[in-house]
Amino acid sequence: MTHRIHNFNAGPAALPLPVLQEIQAELLDFQGSGMSILEVSHRSKWFENVLDDATARIKRLLRLDDRYQVLFLQGGASMQFCMAPMNLAIAGKPLNYVDTGTWATKAIKEAQILGNDVRVVASSADRDYTYIPGDVPVDPDAAYLHITSNNTIRGTQWRKFPETGGVPMVGDFSSDIFSRVFDAEPFGLIYAGAQKNAGPAGVTLVVIREDLLSRTPDSLPTMLKYSTFSSKKSMFNTPPCFAIYVVQLVMKWLEETMGGMEGIAAANRRKAELLYGYLDSQGFYQSPVGKDSQSFMNVIFRLPTPELEQQFIGSALAQDLGGLKGHRSVGGCRASLYNAVSLEAVQALVDFMKEFARKNG
Amino acid sequence: MTHRIHNFNAGPAALPLPVLQEIQAELLDFQGSGMSILEVSHRSKWFENVLDDATARIKRLLRLDDRYQVLFLQGGASMQFCMAPMNLAIAGKPLNYVDTGTWATKAIKEAQILGNDVRVVASSADRDYTYIPGDVPVDPDAAYLHITSNNTIRGTQWRKFPETGGVPMVGDFSSDIFSRVFDAEPFGLIYAGAQKNAGPAGVTLVVIREDLLSRTPDSLPTMLKYSTFSSKKSMFNTPPCFAIYVVQLVMKWLEETMGGMEGIAAANRRKAELLYGYLDSQGFYQSPVGKDSQSFMNVIFRLPTPELEQQFIGSALAQDLGGLKGHRSVGGCRASLYNAVSLEAVQALVDFMKEFARKNG
Repeated sequence: MTHRIHNFNAGPAALPLPVLQEIQAELLDFQGSGMSILEVSHRSKWFENVLDDATARIKRLLRLDDRYQVLFLQGGASMQFCMAPMNLAIAGKPLNYVDTGTWATKAIKEAQILGNDVRVVASSADRDYTYIPGDVPVDPDAAYLHITSNNTIRGTQWRKFPETGGVPMVGDFSSDIFSRVFDAEPFGLIYAGAQKNAGPAGVTLVVIREDLLSRTPDSLPTMLKYSTFSSKKSMFNTPPCFAIYVVQLVMKWLEETMGGMEGIAAANRRKAELLYGYLDSQGFYQSPVGKDSQSFMNVIFRLPTPELEQQFIGSALAQDLGGLKGHRSVGGCRASLYNAVSLEAVQALVDFMKEFARKNG
Repeated sequence: MTHRIHNFNAGPAALPLPVLQEIQAELLDFQGSGMSILEVSHRSKWFENVLDDATARIKRLLRLDDRYQVLFLQGGASMQFCMAPMNLAIAGKPLNYVDTGTWATKAIKEAQILGNDVRVVASSADRDYTYIPGDVPVDPDAAYLHITSNNTIRGTQWRKFPETGGVPMVGDFSSDIFSRVFDAEPFGLIYAGAQKNAGPAGVTLVVIREDLLSRTPDSLPTMLKYSTFSSKKSMFNTPPCFAIYVVQLVMKWLEETMGGMEGIAAANRRKAELLYGYLDSQGFYQSPVGKDSQSFMNVIFRLPTPELEQQFIGSALAQDLGGLKGHRSVGGCRASLYNAVSLEAVQALVDFMKEFARKNG
């Protein structure tokens, strides 16, 4: 019997066990090719089928119409922090950003390095990023408004996206894409490192609306242009084939096992309600996040002392509950409840938390 | 019994079977962690050990002294075509390039897009890139000289690198790194997409000499600076963990099973001599490449007609000899003899070629 723990890592994170088992089963011989998926040519029908199927499933799951293209890039969301403004800035127009902490702050910095007129139109820095700003006054002539859909480190998440009056939104959805139903229509660009809800580290999903593709300046290096990936179906050069293959399997699992976006959204809601419900019911653990901004993906909580937090994390791991340490920049504890984390795992965590509070409270 | 073919793909390419078996065996539970290598945090001791071991092995295999750093990037060699000049150009100094075909030509184009003073100091375009230029007159004040160590599409390979009189060389070693012993000393930067001799698609190896790190301009976006990867041990953001893990296993196989660089170089020589020896001995197949420029990694050959070539490729595959189609830009046939391709595979290919020539000659 293989040893498997409950994995609450913030990313790379838990993957569905059936996906891992399928990878394992066909690792030496991919679909009768006599080669591993790690060894087939990216120009072969085997890999092209993987790419096409992954693309079709992503378009269905996100309900994207024909104006949207799905691209597979490398470099993580951090690379998108520079690629988005490189490709989408318009001379003489401001770029609007909302600062909701670490990753949003980094995105702002990269846009500034490029010399753009960057305006932070809303921020939650005043209360240590513990909430999502309610009021977002968008410049009517902004080239775009950038938001971070879910804030992994701070444990906050947009419930309702800002109204922009037609200004296209650019969304970093790294940590909650495929976790809930949302309308892609107001977004011109959506990007996400795959390693939370979509697959392993090593591939970045980019969804772009075709009218924004024409903004790309000719002067950009080829590999930094969205149009390069768009015109070559993400295969201008060798793509990260294996990571795309795992994404395909995760998308298949979402559609065929988890009931698509409605199914997974309901499952994620049940998990979050279970954990937040317990947090609300007691006084030993504290959530620093405002109630209407609490993330369904990353649940942040503090214990009375840093020593107790350390003890909590160690004791949890000893009971096969892993990945509960908060981000090193903020400390505390964090349970990430991504798609592949089961309700049973969250129940096991809550049971452990109760027991730990009883012993140490 | 798993079905496995002889895989002569140009990349992604054959991986050592023991490496694939090790990945398969531990895919659900990496070293007792209770998580897949696809699920462990990049900040965990499990992954840090993988990264450190891969780095140490690469430094040993390439005999790199302490001035060299090994970095793991994303985007393939194509991303390095722009990153190298972005990071290493010096105002007022020319960049020197040698044009040996497709990939070298692309590298030149990206340096030009950035507005550099690019000088192509040697080229084999005059004879359709069928040879490696003998004379390379390097500008004494050049910021660097860029060469492509092995030309996958044209089947040429540098036997002896140019003398540069102290100008640092930048080498694209994507298709022959770890295949032969060479002196890294004249190189300031070595880069290689992993998907030929080092691992799967999805990670790019970068070896940089520390004196070149100081050239990086502050104005570059963070993810396009070598110094970002250098100062954060390739973990400024989430690296492509799985691809790095496979690289580590391939490096372990090179050191512990194949006898290190001497062992693999001798094995590669035997394979190339077997196939070129056969080509030299007959008149049905023709090598378009000059004898002193023939690549040990990618053996290009033509048949009397394109129809026979197509028939050859199909019949070979039916006998479990795969990946023999030449690059779509040049046609013909190509057998890639990377590290994981065995002498037995090359013997099987030669036997098939003899039989095919006998029937169709």
